Amino acid sequence: MTDTNGQDGATQTATTPSGAKGQAMVIFQPSGRRGTFDIGTPVLDAARSLGVYIESVCGGRGICGRCQISVSEGQFAKYKITSATDHLSAFSQKEQRYASKRDLATDRRLSCSALISGDLVIDVPDEGQVNRQMVRKAADTRHIDRDPATQLCYVDVAEPDMENPLSDADRLIKALEAEWGYENLTLDHPLFVSLQTILRKGNWSVTAAVFEDKGHPVITGLWPGFHDRLYGLAVDIGSTTIAMHLNDMLTGQVVASAGVSNPQIRFGEDLMSRVSYIQMNPDKQPELTKTVRDAIDTMIGQVTEEAGATREEIAEAVFVGNPVMHHLFLGIDPIELGGAPFALTVSEGITHLARDLGIGINPAGRIYTLPCIAGHVGADAAAVTLAEGPHRSEETTLVVDVGTNAEIILGNNTRALAASSPTGPAFEGAEISCGQRAAPGAIERVRIDPETLEPRFRIIGVDLWSDDEGFTEVAGEIGVTGICGSGIVEVIAEMYLSGVISEDGVVNGALQEKSPRIIANGRTFSYVLWDKGETVISIAQTDVRAIQLAKAALYAGVKLLMDKMGIERPDSIKFAGAFGSFIDPKYAMVLGLIPDCPLDKVEGVGNSAGTGARMALLNRQHRREIEQTVRAIDKIETALEKKFQDHFVNAMAFPNKVDPFTNLRQSVTLPENNQASGGDDAQGSAGRRGNRRRARRAS
Amino acid sequence: MTDTNGQDGATQTATTPSGAKGQAMVIFQPSGRRGTFDIGTPVLDAARSLGVYIESVCGGRGICGRCQISVSEGQFAKYKITSATDHLSAFSQKEQRYASKRDLATDRRLSCSALISGDLVIDVPDEGQVNRQMVRKAADTRHIDRDPATQLCYVDVAEPDMENPLSDADRLIKALEAEWGYENLTLDHPLFVSLQTILRKGNWSVTAAVFEDKGHPVITGLWPGFHDRLYGLAVDIGSTTIAMHLNDMLTGQVVASAGVSNPQIRFGEDLMSRVSYIQMNPDKQPELTKTVRDAIDTMIGQVTEEAGATREEIAEAVFVGNPVMHHLFLGIDPIELGGAPFALTVSEGITHLARDLGIGINPAGRIYTLPCIAGHVGADAAAVTLAEGPHRSEETTLVVDVGTNAEIILGNNTRALAASSPTGPAFEGAEISCGQRAAPGAIERVRIDPETLEPRFRIIGVDLWSDDEGFTEVAGEIGVTGICGSGIVEVIAEMYLSGVISEDGVVNGALQEKSPRIIANGRTFSYVLWDKGETVISIAQTDVRAIQLAKAALYAGVKLLMDKMGIERPDSIKFAGAFGSFIDPKYAMVLGLIPDCPLDKVEGVGNSAGTGARMALLNRQHRREIEQTVRAIDKIETALEKKFQDHFVNAMAFPNKVDPFTNLRQSVTLPENNQASGGDDAQGSAGRRGNRRRARRAS
Repeated sequence: MTDTNGQDGATQTATTPSGAKGQAMVIFQPSGRRGTFDIGTPVLDAARSLGVYIESVCGGRGICGRCQISVSEGQFAKYKITSATDHLSAFSQKEQRYASKRDLATDRRLSCSALISGDLVIDVPDEGQVNRQMVRKAADTRHIDRDPATQLCYVDVAEPDMENPLSDADRLIKALEAEWGYENLTLDHPLFVSLQTILRKGNWSVTAAVFEDKGHPVITGLWPGFHDRLYGLAVDIGSTTIAMHLNDMLTGQVVASAGVSNPQIRFGEDLMSRVSYIQMNPDKQPELTKTVRDAIDTMIGQVTEEAGATREEIAEAVFVGNPVMHHLFLGIDPIELGGAPFALTVSEGITHLARDLGIGINPAGRIYTLPCIAGHVGADAAAVTLAEGPHRSEETTLVVDVGTNAEIILGNNTRALAASSPTGPAFEGAEISCGQRAAPGAIERVRIDPETLEPRFRIIGVDLWSDDEGFTEVAGEIGVTGICGSGIVEVIAEMYLSGVISEDGVVNGALQEKSPRIIANGRTFSYVLWDKGETVISIAQTDVRAIQLAKAALYAGVKLLMDKMGIERPDSIKFAGAFGSFIDPKYAMVLGLIPDCPLDKVEGVGNSAGTGARMALLNRQHRREIEQTVRAIDKIETALEKKFQDHFVNAMAFPNKVDPFTNLRQSVTLPENNQASGGDDAQGSAGRRGNRRRARRAS
Repeated sequence: MTDTNGQDGATQTATTPSGAKGQAMVIFQPSGRRGTFDIGTPVLDAARSLGVYIESVCGGRGICGRCQISVSEGQFAKYKITSATDHLSAFSQKEQRYASKRDLATDRRLSCSALISGDLVIDVPDEGQVNRQMVRKAADTRHIDRDPATQLCYVDVAEPDMENPLSDADRLIKALEAEWGYENLTLDHPLFVSLQTILRKGNWSVTAAVFEDKGHPVITGLWPGFHDRLYGLAVDIGSTTIAMHLNDMLTGQVVASAGVSNPQIRFGEDLMSRVSYIQMNPDKQPELTKTVRDAIDTMIGQVTEEAGATREEIAEAVFVGNPVMHHLFLGIDPIELGGAPFALTVSEGITHLARDLGIGINPAGRIYTLPCIAGHVGADAAAVTLAEGPHRSEETTLVVDVGTNAEIILGNNTRALAASSPTGPAFEGAEISCGQRAAPGAIERVRIDPETLEPRFRIIGVDLWSDDEGFTEVAGEIGVTGICGSGIVEVIAEMYLSGVISEDGVVNGALQEKSPRIIANGRTFSYVLWDKGETVISIAQTDVRAIQLAKAALYAGVKLLMDKMGIERPDSIKFAGAFGSFIDPKYAMVLGLIPDCPLDKVEGVGNSAGTGARMALLNRQHRREIEQTVRAIDKIETALEKKFQDHFVNAMAFPNKVDPFTNLRQSVTLPENNQASGGDDAQGSAGRRGNRRRARRAS
């Protein structure tokens, strides 16, 4: 590498114990990537040649200050080098100028300007720290390595010259190609109209947004002068809710978020009822498409206002959703997804023009939709796969996303399988007599005393348990309104563990003698959880059956994939989605929703569909990764598998109650503060991750 | 090459005197391209490997019949081979089936099915002959080699399969890649919506339009079943008129044409007045853009109706126009073109999405705009260059397109130069006292008797000369209304040749004594051409001055380019455009519009901007050719050249009248039927080409 910035800092004679004469070893943290470079190489160039992403908008002019790094001092025995701050060239004029005008911490250097003069360990700060904009609302705290498809490039454009009559576009392209190394660069159509004005307004200095993914690079945005703001959207279109995160593309941080109910609900509560609606009203598909796009547009208005961004500054967006949502968003009739053979119309990961989809970001902006895996396993499941990365691990991981259907991915770095199981909506509290969506007042945690059969519980919005002092006063304001998905799983597991229901799922009417909470309900029996004033919340025999059917479907799907994979149990289990965030893994295992697995290898991973969308937004390599992974996944259609029915029938009963519980007790150390566990999660973000819930039976 | 159609025709043991054993020589006519092929190679494959374009829609199924060829029999000494019809495999089942259902001349074979079994001379028929659709209106009879960017591909798509859940799009792409050899094929967005329905309507057989130019191929059209209709538009947006030709993309023939006045005229008669209008009303540029696009949309309605085509079947369009028209069509403000440095905003040859420009063809269709050469030399001049091909010839050719400005291209296959000269509108009949546009009643041919100074003339719409018997009666219905561009050139040349005006362009008042046609007009004199009833048509001193200024500007531009090129005269001269079609080259030379050149090397080439647009439409190689040519052209800005002023002043006078005329008489054989010459052209198509006008002075 040659010293392209030699004028800016005197190259020092260096001690380079590690490398050849005139060379030095440089290690970048936290990635640990390392290489040997010629003395005089700018640190930014060294980083790029190793694939270490350091942001730079101004192209090494020392204006943007985005490329800050610091030096770790000391001996690094592991690498056999000594790193010191004076192994960088002296503070340059550019850096002095930048530091005099903007904040530059004393230990910080501009990597475009600082030249390697000896062995170095370089810290690349987490992008958020360099960012002058505060992080307002975290979608997920996971670090995402960045390799954005859109890059901001500050550039000086030659003025028009009658002797050499190149057009404005040609001169802009020539400058970007010369200074930023692009080839075959073109200008996207919406910029034709504004190009002339922007160039002159910027007095021939402009900042261009250049998109480069598959195919040739394209200029998709243009601002007069120096402009260092660029945003991207990550959107998860769920059947029930749409969640949007606005990301600062220069730091990777979420700067604003929004969530709304999917307004398509007025055409049908769940997916299949919306598909049925379109089957009955074939001309209405465009209306459902418009409805969801309008909602997204409103949300874009909200997040841009919250972040102080403009729509034009949003250069990219990534959308995920189940197959029906995916198709409706793209304007495709979803009726083929309503019946066999469940044929997707398009499924690959696709880069769209924002203007083709009528999404109100920069009209030259690009929208990427993740691939759908199969007719029942959508781009949301692909995003979950990308986020949880079973394909990146030697361990065989089971990823389960429970909604109206359960998407199941089982795999490791040699093979992955996916299927969808028709669990129905019971896990979401629907089709349960006292069921409700997770909302304040919903019972979400339940314990039943096996001696007295008396319950105690917690409701969303209240930190106290129902038998704690003061619960009645506090809960009185909110009211106990029903039972949500995680509450149903817990109460049925506790009913089973306390003997209220048998292994076959029958509510034991003989216990009426022992407890007034068992009541007759026609020919079957119910368990009364709450009976105060006008509100009675009870679990009926039909509710137990609904959960049995749901868990049997889920388990049968998992078992089918384990059979195909030739394994007895996975190495780890990840519960994605809202249900997975709130459910207690122990109870899931008691009920037999999931196969045996060490409890500390079971975790709720929150909104990992949203995380996957953000990963694809911030790093184009992740797009290739998930496209290749989805192509390679073995797609299993449960309806075609005879064994699925067998597994389903076999999974209807609850597992032997002693064994799993004993196993659990043996395999994990259960914390003592069980009663408080989960409290933080009652209203917490679904995106909080790694918060493993461990609980033991209340006794 | 292997025999991919072996099942379809028995491979014969062949006599292959020319090639190695098992091989044969094949020559394709009219291109003369030749190669040696393995016995058993389909003729279509052989043609393709040599770059000989033979249409095929069905991919060798013997359905479309587009790939017909015939065999020339006999000995071809030049190639040392004997060609015979039985050097092709026997008539195949496919061909029998096709012949039984559709017309197939007895000497014709389907090249997809006929296998090479010996030496052959193959005639590839002119596409029009295979075409079932009649050619309605020829824009230009020039043959254009085809290599269309859009190809129709008939293909069978696999049905959906739950075991292997590829999407409709994936299966379509897979089929096209397997059967037609595309790679990295994608589906353009507008097709997402219709794909599902079309595949099922076609019962999994469809015809796709695949566009492939720069970059990866894209599916831009789709029809159920077999579909062999595809169209393309070639459009020349002039300041005054818009001309459109609808081309059958499968034959290259023009099937419908339309022409309308450019409705932007209401914002200003000429270019600069429209630019001024926008300068005064900056918010009105979008209105001018909409106006021209709306007119184009109406024309598309006309040509599709005339040809019985649908808008969706129009897969491509090519647009040319001067820089202001080019920018306004693209939605770009042209004000920068109104003053120095005359900076174009975009100038490269660009492929646009039809939907981005709001042009009502197939929304996934592509629109190509030819490159602009410089701020005053537009995409229309590039199209003229492409059509006339100075860059393809060893001869140095001067191409002149006279409008309000004259675009001048001078070059050969080693170097080319371009400039624009400010001729003003005099050559178009504007700013001339009795001038008018070329329309019935306008004087277009003039002869003056040098002895009596009596004129005779012809008007557009009447075949007789004014001194022919019956002229008065015939002309009476139309009326003699004024004088058009070519008439002005002739009358002033004749006035000069007959001594009415001097070399300096002064009308000789002393001739009043000799002829009553010379009349005083203030301090100067006029020549009266026509004086009947209320109509007096005379040529005033100011008219002579206007033509002198115009011709001096044109000649000065030409001279400047000849200086730069280091030549004294070009090898040939081509007059493009309407003015060039009607002007008599001899008079142009008499007046000194153009430099000396043998008269038989001077020709009017008609609407070659339209021809260039058609070439770019039908052959993507021509797009690359003109892009490279335009980049290589030396752009000369006359305003910056001191010598231009000198040349201009020197060119004001008329040339020595004896010399050029004598030269002409010596260098060419003048036909005797001078008086009838030009008659056919009076109302003829501007597109008629190669009709060289030779005339001698009437005496």
